[in-house]
Amino acid sequence: MATKHILIVPGDGIGQEVTAVGKKVLDKIAAKFGHTFTYDEALIGHVAIEATGNPLPDETLEKMRKSDAVLFGAVGHPKYDNDPTAKVRPEQGLLKMRKELGLYANLRPIKLFDELLGASSIKPEVLKGADILFFRELTGDIYFGEKGRKNDGDTAYDVAQYSRFEVERIARKAFEAARTRRKKLCSVDKANVIETSRLWREVVQKIAKEYPDVEVEHQFVDATAMLLIKDPRKFDVVVTANLFGDILTDEASQIAGSMGMLASASIGDGTGVYEPIHGSAHDITGKGVANPLASILSAALLLDISFGMKAESEAVISAVDKVLKAGFRTRDIADAQTPANKILGTDAIGEEVLK
Amino acid sequence: MATKHILIVPGDGIGQEVTAVGKKVLDKIAAKFGHTFTYDEALIGHVAIEATGNPLPDETLEKMRKSDAVLFGAVGHPKYDNDPTAKVRPEQGLLKMRKELGLYANLRPIKLFDELLGASSIKPEVLKGADILFFRELTGDIYFGEKGRKNDGDTAYDVAQYSRFEVERIARKAFEAARTRRKKLCSVDKANVIETSRLWREVVQKIAKEYPDVEVEHQFVDATAMLLIKDPRKFDVVVTANLFGDILTDEASQIAGSMGMLASASIGDGTGVYEPIHGSAHDITGKGVANPLASILSAALLLDISFGMKAESEAVISAVDKVLKAGFRTRDIADAQTPANKILGTDAIGEEVLK
Ligand SMILES: CC(C)[C@H](C(=O)O)[C@@H](O)C(=O)O
Ligand SMILES: CC(C)[C@H](C(=O)O)[C@@H](O)C(=O)O
Repeated sequence: MATKHILIVPGDGIGQEVTAVGKKVLDKIAAKFGHTFTYDEALIGHVAIEATGNPLPDETLEKMRKSDAVLFGAVGHPKYDNDPTAKVRPEQGLLKMRKELGLYANLRPIKLFDELLGASSIKPEVLKGADILFFRELTGDIYFGEKGRKNDGDTAYDVAQYSRFEVERIARKAFEAARTRRKKLCSVDKANVIETSRLWREVVQKIAKEYPDVEVEHQFVDATAMLLIKDPRKFDVVVTANLFGDILTDEASQIAGSMGMLASASIGDGTGVYEPIHGSAHDITGKGVANPLASILSAALLLDISFGMKAESEAVISAVDKVLKAGFRTRDIADAQTPANKILGTDAIGEEVLK
Repeated sequence: MATKHILIVPGDGIGQEVTAVGKKVLDKIAAKFGHTFTYDEALIGHVAIEATGNPLPDETLEKMRKSDAVLFGAVGHPKYDNDPTAKVRPEQGLLKMRKELGLYANLRPIKLFDELLGASSIKPEVLKGADILFFRELTGDIYFGEKGRKNDGDTAYDVAQYSRFEVERIARKAFEAARTRRKKLCSVDKANVIETSRLWREVVQKIAKEYPDVEVEHQFVDATAMLLIKDPRKFDVVVTANLFGDILTDEASQIAGSMGMLASASIGDGTGVYEPIHGSAHDITGKGVANPLASILSAALLLDISFGMKAESEAVISAVDKVLKAGFRTRDIADAQTPANKILGTDAIGEEVLK
């Protein structure tokens, strides 16, 4: 019986709808297992810019630091996407949060619920049994290096950068995880071209010596983008830099049937942040059709990783599994065989999970 | 009836085996259509380092400049991949060639031969009819910016860079191509984070005004990596930066059943270079099992783009089609239904195409 304080940060677009469902699931778990969870809410992204002019208000950051874990939605707004010259952007809030909270390790587990084998564009016989855990570095690379314009704005540049220390700490986390799984680690880089990648490979090769029981493989990012689709079962733990991780994990969402199913944990020096890997999806915002399962599964990760509540976390995952087994789907994970009356909206599928 | 001089640059690994077959096909076309093709050969990559110490000897570059087109194999060697500290690397030859010859546009057509629908890990109903033409920028981005170490080697950095001019010229090529196709262009960037991408998007938006008949869409690279697999038919022409293009086109090779089927054209200010998108594949080098169809299809692109020989190019493509229709396969494109006696080696399938 524990007392924990959880900050809900819905952010933009469908972030609102899906975190509301995620929170209900946390509430239910607290009731069922006799914990006391208290909550607060805070702004980030476009909604924060609208309210305060700042994509990550100090107040939000303060609240994050003081909470035991953060359940996060999504950030982004089409307005900025179509205006490449905008100076203040929702994503700055997300990136600043990652940096300020020292969230250097982003864990993205890709595991297909058997019931969703048909929902993917990849053949079931290629997918069946695939189970990958990505470690994406989250506070370095081209995301955080110097960037700007020169030659009167005619030339744009971005600096990608990694220090040994930054690579070491994420590599260690990935090796530790591999030890608890199938003991295989694939490190992804572009060491044939990029200097940051050569440092990355050097460091991973060095750390590998501390984990002789883990089988290590180095792949180029282009080859990996292909192999993930061709033979997803060959991967166990994958560790990679921020930008490559961004691209490869979105791609890998097809292995899990839909992006709407994928949760992620961002951890590091302090409070952990848990969020779906999908974005703000303004095209479906407010329509009540967004898939909340990624937010629910993010809550499960939160329980497991930040609170060490394994049984509680498994209860959530098995509830999701039961709902899928009962044939319920949101639109994004439905297939031609799904009867119309089993296709539920955001809240309705949330209610099924709560049951 | 034309006289043309073609330089064969096999490079490393299976580059040797596959360009030999590509050359035979060019020979056959010359004989059939009454052209005179003369040939020379030159070194690049690991084999050039071994012979001269230089991954792109001046002599090779001179020969490239003087030829009407280059049929290229692949570069790379595992020796360097496992040694991130190597100073001289095969890939430097490839990159220098691209820069020196001004090969700023890399065209990668992704089209599935109907017979190979079963060879892909993606479901046939998702793939059928997919036909994408990638324009990958090839002489800028993080590939060619300043890179190095600082803090006593503890920190590595790479600068990604684009000028307006560089984006404009590749965007124009992509828009022109879209006009001759389904009139849809998807420009891929990461403008929500990267400054180079914001310049990219700005410029593409500007150039789009010159092509009001082409429907333009901007996608983030992470979303694109997902959508390519989820719904490949939604794409017509895709234009993107060097690094994103590297990753996305390798991924997209799964749409065509196998990387062994994909040809590319690198064009720009002078001589065009034609090469498979696959690499040197040292694991199968010398075994006679490499798929030469990408090299043969590269020869088809060469005939079309550098020599303006449409009928000749189509003759090659239709020969490949016939061989596939007759049920012949190399190992990489065979599936469970392929009878063993239809699985041919490099030379044997080449002979079938020649017939
Ligand atoms: C919104 C964007 C800045 C972000 C990223 O690129 O990291 C998102 O794609 C993600 O993966 O969390
Ligand atoms: C070998 C390597 C440097 C090259 C690249 O990254 O451009 C290759 O992957 C390609 O796509 O031609």
